[in-house]
Amino acid sequence: MGNTTDLLNMNTEQLNELYASLKERYAEFQNQNMKLDMSRGKPCPEQLELSKAMLDLVASSDSLRALDGSDCLNYGGVDGIPEAKDLFAQILGVSSSEVMIGGSSSLTMMHDTISRAMLHGVYGSQQPWGKLPTVKFICPSPGYDRHFAICELFNIEMIVVDMLHDGPDMDAVEALVSEDDSIKGIWCVPKYSNPDGITYSDQVVERLAEMTAKANDFRIFWDDAYTVHHLTDEPDHLSNILSACKEAGNPDRVFMFCSTSKITFPGAGVAAMAGSVANINYTRKQIAVQTIGPDKINQLRHIRFLKDLDHLSDHMAQHAAILKPKFDRVLSKLESELGERGIASWNKPNGGYFVSLNTLDGCATIAVKLAADAGVTLTAAGATFPYGRDPRDRNIRIAPSFPSVEELEKSIEVLSICIQLASIEKLLAER
Amino acid sequence: MGNTTDLLNMNTEQLNELYASLKERYAEFQNQNMKLDMSRGKPCPEQLELSKAMLDLVASSDSLRALDGSDCLNYGGVDGIPEAKDLFAQILGVSSSEVMIGGSSSLTMMHDTISRAMLHGVYGSQQPWGKLPTVKFICPSPGYDRHFAICELFNIEMIVVDMLHDGPDMDAVEALVSEDDSIKGIWCVPKYSNPDGITYSDQVVERLAEMTAKANDFRIFWDDAYTVHHLTDEPDHLSNILSACKEAGNPDRVFMFCSTSKITFPGAGVAAMAGSVANINYTRKQIAVQTIGPDKINQLRHIRFLKDLDHLSDHMAQHAAILKPKFDRVLSKLESELGERGIASWNKPNGGYFVSLNTLDGCATIAVKLAADAGVTLTAAGATFPYGRDPRDRNIRIAPSFPSVEELEKSIEVLSICIQLASIEKLLAER
Repeated sequence: MGNTTDLLNMNTEQLNELYASLKERYAEFQNQNMKLDMSRGKPCPEQLELSKAMLDLVASSDSLRALDGSDCLNYGGVDGIPEAKDLFAQILGVSSSEVMIGGSSSLTMMHDTISRAMLHGVYGSQQPWGKLPTVKFICPSPGYDRHFAICELFNIEMIVVDMLHDGPDMDAVEALVSEDDSIKGIWCVPKYSNPDGITYSDQVVERLAEMTAKANDFRIFWDDAYTVHHLTDEPDHLSNILSACKEAGNPDRVFMFCSTSKITFPGAGVAAMAGSVANINYTRKQIAVQTIGPDKINQLRHIRFLKDLDHLSDHMAQHAAILKPKFDRVLSKLESELGERGIASWNKPNGGYFVSLNTLDGCATIAVKLAADAGVTLTAAGATFPYGRDPRDRNIRIAPSFPSVEELEKSIEVLSICIQLASIEKLLAER
Repeated sequence: MGNTTDLLNMNTEQLNELYASLKERYAEFQNQNMKLDMSRGKPCPEQLELSKAMLDLVASSDSLRALDGSDCLNYGGVDGIPEAKDLFAQILGVSSSEVMIGGSSSLTMMHDTISRAMLHGVYGSQQPWGKLPTVKFICPSPGYDRHFAICELFNIEMIVVDMLHDGPDMDAVEALVSEDDSIKGIWCVPKYSNPDGITYSDQVVERLAEMTAKANDFRIFWDDAYTVHHLTDEPDHLSNILSACKEAGNPDRVFMFCSTSKITFPGAGVAAMAGSVANINYTRKQIAVQTIGPDKINQLRHIRFLKDLDHLSDHMAQHAAILKPKFDRVLSKLESELGERGIASWNKPNGGYFVSLNTLDGCATIAVKLAADAGVTLTAAGATFPYGRDPRDRNIRIAPSFPSVEELEKSIEVLSICIQLASIEKLLAER
């Protein structure tokens, strides 16, 4: 192959030679009948172990009363017990009266917020969104597939806006939102974004808060899923969107969401949402018809375990101690396999759950399919874009949390081979 | 007062005399500054105590895997763990594939089912219910105020149908449903109904299943809230609505709901819904967009505690042992205070959470207000009817579960005085 490693500089003979040797390596992996899964941001068993002690903190002999004296076993408290509201308020940087506690899934709170908006409108709406001929959301992409699935369910038209290094392309967002009053919302994962690991800059947060929206009931859906999920001792800084909205004179513009799915247990966590008091009061009135209230005992369990921001921070450092070596191995393996090939780039996140990799245009679907045929499951190519359609077919989301370091090493090797195979096929086809 | 106790037979002088002596008793109670609450069907602390051991059954040292091997701490299982589906299937008399497990509130599952119907329609709908000019529900009344609140939230027009001794007036229901295709549903609490304590007869169940519905996507909302909540050793029998619907060739007509709110904890229970496999599959597809799944650890906790129908039945007998003396005291006190007055009648339920009392027409609101002024809180008069309007202003719902026997004794005495005062005022005004 001469002295070059960059595929783009190779001649046809070199590419064919490399292709043949990669095919051999690929065949070897295929013969191993592996079953490796990097498809979802799922905590590994060692992470779940970190919170198991929580299960012992609400026993029959313990007090089961909330701070306000109410019996957590009985009816009452449609928006959560005071101590749970307090802790989530601290996590989200808002006041306790700006918080509502939900069940185990923040996705449910997002879905239901949109469902309510469609049926009744949000605070300040002239009419239910569902009565309009078209409702549109801005979807910075790549993004979170489940956000996009909610839009699809409600027939909300999704407009793709590029993710830049410090958040969504705000020039594009501002232009869209100021001109089209059928644009009612924007999805944001503002910290360690899914999948790019990007944290929005102060300027992006400010521009989101300040921009002119033609729809007076425009809402930012601020899914702060990874707000305390750092991988380094020098975490990214995210400025507070609710404060920014208040300062900008748009106090009701944002709904914030978070959960303990990746703090304690995805299968038994606690979710919360936040917003201006006007938004929360409006929402509470509707939720009071929907439910007798969320599980208060699980809130108590979480409060007794997580205690306060300091304890939470220590707890998250233990998660990081498990996750960091996994991310490191993925990144070093990508570097050693693809670093000088000139056919792929990827981010190095300071937190969150994903590494986002871009191939040459048109290579992601083939690479993901090849990997699957060799036993390595990845998130479907395209899933990080609305309607599952990546316009450049290049984004691959890697979720390092669940597999072991050894499995990751192998999976990334397989994926790297598959990306090279797909790239060589593309390069040869173009000659 | 002569030899009569029936107010309707008294002359004006007798009524005035009685009124004065009742006023004195009323004033005495007012001076006691009592605070007694019979307003909601809320389990008492002793009942909650019965299930506290459940909190110790899922500890950090226990297995946290479901029957299918899945880790209950992690993601997965949007419709519940298999053993939870099995138990609720037995409770509702359906098969496991006809069940979905939810969060802690069956009310949420009912609300969300209607919300989805409004936005997307149900299985077999030509279009979302929300696209129709009018959607109507039949509301057998008196009934459950929270059902009616859901209809109000969604602007669903409520049509009152009388409750007879064995269920809704089926002649009226059949006539309405067969002629009006904007009638999309009927609310039913088929066993120990709220508030009348009525259990639907086999014939009523059959007629509901068999009747001709002009709307092909008509649904029965079967809130089987009190299905195992007996007060006697000879519980009422309710025939199975899903089986009846299948036999009648209308397998998709019914959604069934229940929860453990009044089996274990209202504040930390588990809810479930059931229906034909077609209904459940259709619903599951939408719920998979709404949530990462309900709390699986709490399902595990419930299964380990309730085990099977036999254990559940023993457990419910312990509830009955606490509740029965309360119901008995309410009934005996009503009998001794009002039994021969000719101005009130009430049911003697075999299960459930309520005693439903009817005054003379036009006396309920005044009586409830008088009671409140003497420190006895009852469910607002009218609450058991759609829009909070009892057309005859006579129904009062009594919830005996929470107060102590002594408090109930006092509360019923106060209520009885208030009912007599209101009745005498009415009788005198009519002379």
